[in-house]
Amino acid sequence: TFSADGKFAGGIIAPYTVYKGKAALSAAPVLPTFSKMDSGSLKVDRRGSIMLTFWPAIGERKYDWEKRQRFALSATEVGSLISLGSKDSCEFFHDPSMLSSNAGQVRKNLSVKPNDSGYFISLTVVNNIQQTNDRFSVPVSTAEFAVMRAAFSFALPHLMGWDRYTNQLPKKMRFCWNVL
Amino acid sequence: TFSADGKFAGGIIAPYTVYKGKAALSAAPVLPTFSKMDSGSLKVDRRGSIMLTFWPAIGERKYDWEKRQRFALSATEVGSLISLGSKDSCEFFHDPSMLSSNAGQVRKNLSVKPNDSGYFISLTVVNNIQQTNDRFSVPVSTAEFAVMRAAFSFALPHLMGWDRYTNQLPKKMRFCWNVL
Amino acid sequence: TFSADGKFAGGIIAPYTVYKGKAALSAAPVLPTFSKMDSGSLKVDRRGSIMLTFWPAIGERKYDWEKRQRFALSATEVGSLISLGSKDSCEFFHDPSMLSSNAGQVRKNLSVKPNDSGYFISLTVVNNIQQTNDRFSVPVSTAEFAVMRAAFSFALPHLMGWDRYTNQLPKKMRFCWNVL
Amino acid sequence: TFSADGKFAGGIIAPYTVYKGKAALSAAPVLPTFSKMDSGSLKVDRRGSIMLTFWPAIGERKYDWEKRQRFALSATEVGSLISLGSKDSCEFFHDPSMLSSNAGQVRKNLSVKPNDSGYFISLTVVNNIQQTNDRFSVPVSTAEFAVMRAAFSFALPHLMGWDRYTNQLPKKMRFCWNVL
Repeated sequence: TFSADGKFAGGIIAPYTVYKGKAALSAAPVLPTFSKMDSGSLKVDRRGSIMLTFWPAIGERKYDWEKRQRFALSATEVGSLISLGSKDSCEFFHDPSMLSSNAGQVRKNLSVKPNDSGYFISLTVVNNIQQTNDRFSVPVSTAEFAVMRAAFSFALPHLMGWDRYTNQLPKKMRFCWNVL
Repeated sequence: TFSADGKFAGGIIAPYTVYKGKAALSAAPVLPTFSKMDSGSLKVDRRGSIMLTFWPAIGERKYDWEKRQRFALSATEVGSLISLGSKDSCEFFHDPSMLSSNAGQVRKNLSVKPNDSGYFISLTVVNNIQQTNDRFSVPVSTAEFAVMRAAFSFALPHLMGWDRYTNQLPKKMRFCWNVL
Repeated sequence: TFSADGKFAGGIIAPYTVYKGKAALSAAPVLPTFSKMDSGSLKVDRRGSIMLTFWPAIGERKYDWEKRQRFALSATEVGSLISLGSKDSCEFFHDPSMLSSNAGQVRKNLSVKPNDSGYFISLTVVNNIQQTNDRFSVPVSTAEFAVMRAAFSFALPHLMGWDRYTNQLPKKMRFCWNVL
Repeated sequence: TFSADGKFAGGIIAPYTVYKGKAALSAAPVLPTFSKMDSGSLKVDRRGSIMLTFWPAIGERKYDWEKRQRFALSATEVGSLISLGSKDSCEFFHDPSMLSSNAGQVRKNLSVKPNDSGYFISLTVVNNIQQTNDRFSVPVSTAEFAVMRAAFSFALPHLMGWDRYTNQLPKKMRFCWNVL
């Protein structure tokens, strides 16, 4: 937090995590980075996201963090999740090497499907380079999904950088900071 | 408020309270605590909650604060409450001594059940050590529940520590803090 | 704004106003006041509200501010408004002199009733001391009511003082302010 | 951001943009300006808005920014958009020269109409002075509209200046500002 100009100053570690039988799933926001333009304006450089992390169970209440896989939800994908009706499903495809020479070598697929008591959130990662194929599926209860919906809705304007558009702080204060 | 590094600097007392015939019920957020890691990051130490407090009526508009009982709603339980449909009910069980030698000696049970004009929110506390059995039931109107829903939704990201993920403050300000 | 300890330091004037044929209606939040306790905690002293102001039209696009009447919505009344279904109505009664010797002399009645394109929001003020009886009725479109709903929902935690429960600002910063 | 007294101190550039076959559409908040009154209060001078910008495609993934047209959504129009049901449509008309000698020469018309997978957002600008007639139509998916709804809802209180009504900052800090 307190990041500016594309640099960071000590992060916050406050994921929302659910531990289930076969895997754990955590979600945490990743803020956008900004760059300063010649005009003095700050422009969004890299958009923010909600980072989902899945890691497998390897025994009772034991999970293997080394085997984690990630999926970064864009603002629009977050929009899709928070507007999901109780019977709706959605699915996203990512290629982390898109536009590089490794394009198509790794395919990530996230799906959200309704079940009797909430949703299944599943991630498949097919990696042709490392010859691996990982699949995680985590049942998320209606209450847990409500937390995600509320937390993602709260985070969304921050991911977009819209929380910077505020008028709470008068100009004098900005001056104060610069002087100190 | 203004808590950091697990310390506090003067609290805020602003519960939302409803006074009814047999008991009063108040709700107030309890913020998470953070600890600083070697990396400089702040990590959530103890999760926040919404603290519900019930205390009995002992006469007309008189209530006995000494006989209060508490129930701390976790983020997921808050998620359950704010997503409750007008015909839905929910129920939570807590054991405040869980994982200690007194496990099972005190059982707390909170239930939320719809009625004609809102919900009944009830708390039962069975304490085998003190040989007590307290039960409170408070009718909460639709309007009062709407206040709780809005206030709990507002508080939820703060309970989770997600309000720390923001980018409102420019870097210069951070410098100011570090120097002092 | 920036009020603390029950004192004020220059207000904000940013009402949401709709001008209609027979009257104008504006809405603006009134923040709670706090008092500092011996423990150093801040306690809500007087609860906040949404102040509704009605004033009559006296010609084309001319309104008489001197003839205004006010109605202060409590947090629970705001909860009632923001949870109103499109076919629902609600009604509130206030006695501004309640608990004083003038109790019952002034009666204020606010009603919100659905119409084809939104709601009628009406205020009746019967003042037995001044022998007056004022009635205002303002048609509020669905879009205008959506603005009120969003703005009132935003304001609600602030009226309750719950925005004070946040953990965005580290302790060092507070120190900084005190030194200056 | 950090604007006060009607002046600005370096802006934020963080629009939400969707690029489609025939045109691109971006949305970004424009904050209100305030003026200081003799009483020391800050009064909203010019209301904020959500600025929509449309610009045409001129080839595959190429868009012509020079040919952009704008439409500034007022708070009430934003209220209309965020309360739109999935089958609803809405339409707004603006005359940017209203109340000037050029009144009626330029007519802008924004419409939002449901389709199978979200909405069509269309802008028509008829300019009698420059003898031009521009029309843009952008299909916005349900997920993209959900992002707009969440971001516009977040921005709405800021457009109205209601974010200035907050009580998060203690008095000492205010003192700092006044001294500088």
